[in-house]
Amino acid sequence: MGRPFTLLMPRAAVVGATGYLGGELLRVLSQHPDFELAAAVSQSRAGERLGDVYPNLSRFGDTTLTASTDPVDADVTFLAQPAGEAMKLAPSLLERGIRVVDLGPDYRLPDPGEYLRVYGKPHADPAHLPEAVYGIPELDRAAVRSARLVANPGCYPTATLLALAPLWRAGAIGTSVVVDAKSGTSGAGAAPTSTTHHAEASGTVWPYGSPEHRHVPEMRAALSTLTGSSPSILFVPHLVPLVRGILCSIYPTPAGNVDPAGWADLERTAYEGEPFVRVGGVPRLPWAAGTNRCYLSVQPMGSGAVVFSALDNLGKGGATQAVQNANLMLGLPETAGLLQSGFGI
Amino acid sequence: MGRPFTLLMPRAAVVGATGYLGGELLRVLSQHPDFELAAAVSQSRAGERLGDVYPNLSRFGDTTLTASTDPVDADVTFLAQPAGEAMKLAPSLLERGIRVVDLGPDYRLPDPGEYLRVYGKPHADPAHLPEAVYGIPELDRAAVRSARLVANPGCYPTATLLALAPLWRAGAIGTSVVVDAKSGTSGAGAAPTSTTHHAEASGTVWPYGSPEHRHVPEMRAALSTLTGSSPSILFVPHLVPLVRGILCSIYPTPAGNVDPAGWADLERTAYEGEPFVRVGGVPRLPWAAGTNRCYLSVQPMGSGAVVFSALDNLGKGGATQAVQNANLMLGLPETAGLLQSGFGI
Amino acid sequence: MGRPFTLLMPRAAVVGATGYLGGELLRVLSQHPDFELAAAVSQSRAGERLGDVYPNLSRFGDTTLTASTDPVDADVTFLAQPAGEAMKLAPSLLERGIRVVDLGPDYRLPDPGEYLRVYGKPHADPAHLPEAVYGIPELDRAAVRSARLVANPGCYPTATLLALAPLWRAGAIGTSVVVDAKSGTSGAGAAPTSTTHHAEASGTVWPYGSPEHRHVPEMRAALSTLTGSSPSILFVPHLVPLVRGILCSIYPTPAGNVDPAGWADLERTAYEGEPFVRVGGVPRLPWAAGTNRCYLSVQPMGSGAVVFSALDNLGKGGATQAVQNANLMLGLPETAGLLQSGFGI
Amino acid sequence: MGRPFTLLMPRAAVVGATGYLGGELLRVLSQHPDFELAAAVSQSRAGERLGDVYPNLSRFGDTTLTASTDPVDADVTFLAQPAGEAMKLAPSLLERGIRVVDLGPDYRLPDPGEYLRVYGKPHADPAHLPEAVYGIPELDRAAVRSARLVANPGCYPTATLLALAPLWRAGAIGTSVVVDAKSGTSGAGAAPTSTTHHAEASGTVWPYGSPEHRHVPEMRAALSTLTGSSPSILFVPHLVPLVRGILCSIYPTPAGNVDPAGWADLERTAYEGEPFVRVGGVPRLPWAAGTNRCYLSVQPMGSGAVVFSALDNLGKGGATQAVQNANLMLGLPETAGLLQSGFGI
Repeated sequence: MGRPFTLLMPRAAVVGATGYLGGELLRVLSQHPDFELAAAVSQSRAGERLGDVYPNLSRFGDTTLTASTDPVDADVTFLAQPAGEAMKLAPSLLERGIRVVDLGPDYRLPDPGEYLRVYGKPHADPAHLPEAVYGIPELDRAAVRSARLVANPGCYPTATLLALAPLWRAGAIGTSVVVDAKSGTSGAGAAPTSTTHHAEASGTVWPYGSPEHRHVPEMRAALSTLTGSSPSILFVPHLVPLVRGILCSIYPTPAGNVDPAGWADLERTAYEGEPFVRVGGVPRLPWAAGTNRCYLSVQPMGSGAVVFSALDNLGKGGATQAVQNANLMLGLPETAGLLQSGFGI
Repeated sequence: MGRPFTLLMPRAAVVGATGYLGGELLRVLSQHPDFELAAAVSQSRAGERLGDVYPNLSRFGDTTLTASTDPVDADVTFLAQPAGEAMKLAPSLLERGIRVVDLGPDYRLPDPGEYLRVYGKPHADPAHLPEAVYGIPELDRAAVRSARLVANPGCYPTATLLALAPLWRAGAIGTSVVVDAKSGTSGAGAAPTSTTHHAEASGTVWPYGSPEHRHVPEMRAALSTLTGSSPSILFVPHLVPLVRGILCSIYPTPAGNVDPAGWADLERTAYEGEPFVRVGGVPRLPWAAGTNRCYLSVQPMGSGAVVFSALDNLGKGGATQAVQNANLMLGLPETAGLLQSGFGI
Repeated sequence: MGRPFTLLMPRAAVVGATGYLGGELLRVLSQHPDFELAAAVSQSRAGERLGDVYPNLSRFGDTTLTASTDPVDADVTFLAQPAGEAMKLAPSLLERGIRVVDLGPDYRLPDPGEYLRVYGKPHADPAHLPEAVYGIPELDRAAVRSARLVANPGCYPTATLLALAPLWRAGAIGTSVVVDAKSGTSGAGAAPTSTTHHAEASGTVWPYGSPEHRHVPEMRAALSTLTGSSPSILFVPHLVPLVRGILCSIYPTPAGNVDPAGWADLERTAYEGEPFVRVGGVPRLPWAAGTNRCYLSVQPMGSGAVVFSALDNLGKGGATQAVQNANLMLGLPETAGLLQSGFGI
Repeated sequence: MGRPFTLLMPRAAVVGATGYLGGELLRVLSQHPDFELAAAVSQSRAGERLGDVYPNLSRFGDTTLTASTDPVDADVTFLAQPAGEAMKLAPSLLERGIRVVDLGPDYRLPDPGEYLRVYGKPHADPAHLPEAVYGIPELDRAAVRSARLVANPGCYPTATLLALAPLWRAGAIGTSVVVDAKSGTSGAGAAPTSTTHHAEASGTVWPYGSPEHRHVPEMRAALSTLTGSSPSILFVPHLVPLVRGILCSIYPTPAGNVDPAGWADLERTAYEGEPFVRVGGVPRLPWAAGTNRCYLSVQPMGSGAVVFSALDNLGKGGATQAVQNANLMLGLPETAGLLQSGFGI
């Protein structure tokens, strides 16, 4: 059943609080008018004050990081952990009536066989896979509203699917798409590696993901669920010397007789009235940093067109979308706590 | 007299709306619960929609930039213009009962002769210099509350004075101080120059300001006003390849018998309870970006100590401090619209 | 006729010496064992010492910049000027027997009508267009050797054509190619602009070139000349926050029955023994910085493959390739002055 | 005794070949006309081809990394290892007549007690400390020429001492100096850490070194050796978001009656004719990148002056200075292999 939250402010817990997505969740919740913090969980830094770990936060400074989520009295729990952790924790949370937003990959692939193939381990909770909702509200708001368990999409899929879904649903693009993605390094997480060592990462553009990035099966599955069929996606991610932000340059082949000049109108129509998706000119990443915004643009290029999609991998590609999903799941205003402006520069 | 704003939401105008400080003012006001936007003024882009100029803003999108401030029905006007402009505009605004926060240098130096020496032109409004308040609320909140005209300090002086004032007032430092400042390039403004051309600025640390940066006379005057006397400041600014943020590394000589190990306590005591100044460990600039926070730290170094002061040149060193001043001038809560958390990264 | 240079060290002049390509030419020539500097020409800074303009140079410090190329006694002149200048200067140089390497676009398009369309002005020297050689030695070394006038290719075309030519010549790719290019900002030149202002350029990835970048007609023309036909290229350049370097991510469609797994071998075979082209793993841009190297890599991606091409836009995409061409034109060893190692980081 | 190298090209070995200094040594040696590579030693990557580890190198590609230095037939060995390793290896090398240039700290402090205090372990080879020469040729060329064992200075000390020595020797500065250093992150080495993780390091300026950086005792000892006495140095290093390069901003107090306006002449006189030290205007770090140059500048600031010193921490602050020292030790031309020009940008 869970706590009756109609009379009380809903309570949110964050598991994995000292990763980049966990830290961003705390930042977003600190600015949210409608949430109390039930717990911030971190194995590695349990016992420390949040104010010492995150001097940037305007609230929660006196909360102490805890090691266990078990006895938590929360309405929603955000799981921001590496692959394989959420599927161990979610079942007991759901049983206790706590809604779950998983920012990791455990509930994104409907097929447990595909999970085994991509993540190299058997799925530990196949029973809950059928009810997990892939949470991009702009593409299926109703499903999110009624969900107990939301699989918060990866950063690259959010950027790509918001751009492609309207075109694909309208039959305006063909069956093969190239997606060339440029990401800031925060998308690689907080653990130091050679690839993300400053002296290595800051002087180059680093393509990776060969032979197939883990987000590709997720995109395929989501497009199939959302639209009934799916194009073939050639997806190449690149690390660029930025911290926050993703720009996807998307090259669909136009369908049969379709003039790509009409793609911009399809995007505009699809997202009319959406508070978090803007269709317009060439986007800049600072506009998206720290926000739940996705900026889409269709630009003519040669005899065709290219579609740009820009967002913050930690924002609409991560923590703010997770809060947007939680808002919907708990019956709060969808935009609660998410209307800050981005940076001009 | 001005508009009676007790029953209505106060109205703010921004002059110089398309510079970096003007853009940041609009961003801050867009997140402020207590202000309406009376006007956004820009000579160069009058007639354009704010939503087209600043797609990052969550409000004000349909406001049109105007060329003239004259008939504005505002409670407070923010002037974010180059040196020499505010002193032409402020007198008529004050006469009409509109409070003025000037983000430029025109009202920062009490002595018009000094203004002539530093800015190379005679002061056009010496009559209002005596009542202008140099607005760092943490150092003299009462003066800001009762001001009609606030000279919003420069970015470097805000960082330096917040660090030095408690030590100087306590007699804990000697008469000469070295301040080595590192600034992101947004501090140089929006006009393209060779120095701030990306290919020139992004690969180096660029010291400038010889033989004396314009902010030094301002620091001297402010310390003298605030504390009755003033140390000799050797100030060297450097551009570093960042957009937002200033780190000042401050090297005071300890006064006579003073142990610099005690400086940290002086800072902590001075800023206890202040919502926007934190004294603690070594600061990181993303914590300050977009916020009204200043982070101070005293670190032992060799047989002495160094004081670090970090803030966002467009935030506490500019637009957010201007709004903090306006909040006080209009009797709003000082923190209204300014409590967002900074970034962890 | 020109100077007999068999007994003397050949003499090189640089016109446009204070642009980025001009400066890089001087740097490369300063390390070249076989060239004397005949003249360094700059309208804007004539009269200044090179040692003051370029403190980085290990030679030429006492040479004075001049305003006129007219009486120059040179064996080869490098023209590094904006579009429209070289075609005014080259005819008289050629007439005096001076070889010309033009780093601008004036002699890259064989068709003067196409030049008018792309650059918006009629070609002033159509008479020399037929003999101009598009100078990528690895693709047609013999033509460069015998040329009096070399059109040094643009940075993007060099990176793209070195990658595509072997595949296209072998019939291994289909008729349409997507090229997503990421360039450092030095490619935009030394003149400050809003787009290349540090505070604008350093926090984002900036796609541009809509509806068609000027380098596309050049690629089409060169592929056609070099291979007899040409694929349709959808080319999208992006500025990334780096100074030097281009990474092109190239997405050809495989031809009929071709397995893209074989593309790497085609590249390796084509460039076997070439001193300046390396085929191998994923490239890093510092390896190319300041050198004449192009790094190619074919990586499997999904069911297809992607081709990466990396070089320094000021090096193999500009000044070092110009010197490679000049070496060949003057009968010097092709690698003379060009064998420095790149940076590891 | 060592190999008789008069008739043969001298042979150099590099131990620690896969660290950043080791990689830079190989790069410099690859461009050196007078050295053969005797061995490249790396425990972690023994058995790999240099061409695979360092695709940037123009030579040595077919050399295989080895795990042991023992049987090496070399004239000079460069040791580029963490503290504590060189003092284990150097004695046997010296015994076999091999000259040693140690790029680590083991032989920089004349007093083994000071080594214990600073590095936390007893010195394993105190017997060779008295003959070790602290190798900044511009400050004591004769000592380097006759040395068998050179302690190659740290990057910060090289930048600081080149600036301070002429002033201190001339009695032109007082007894206390503030040195505020800004370094690229390559100075922290190749091992990934939280501090040098791209997402952490690229958005801030990070002061460190409290309570005293390990290079300070080295500076004190060197100044004392070189000049007979030493000022008190308050040294604060900062990581800035760059890869290569150090800028030291140096704030000496003028001695008694000395006018700091004369400092520039003292620097110019001291370094007249030196090929690797330039005294002039405000330096830019790309000029130094990859070179053996140090750029000094004295700028008036307020009533005093500031001294700037710029170099590449991997170049004059590391690998190129090591080769300069080796050139002198082996009787080669001091500038052999070191005259490349730096980058303009």
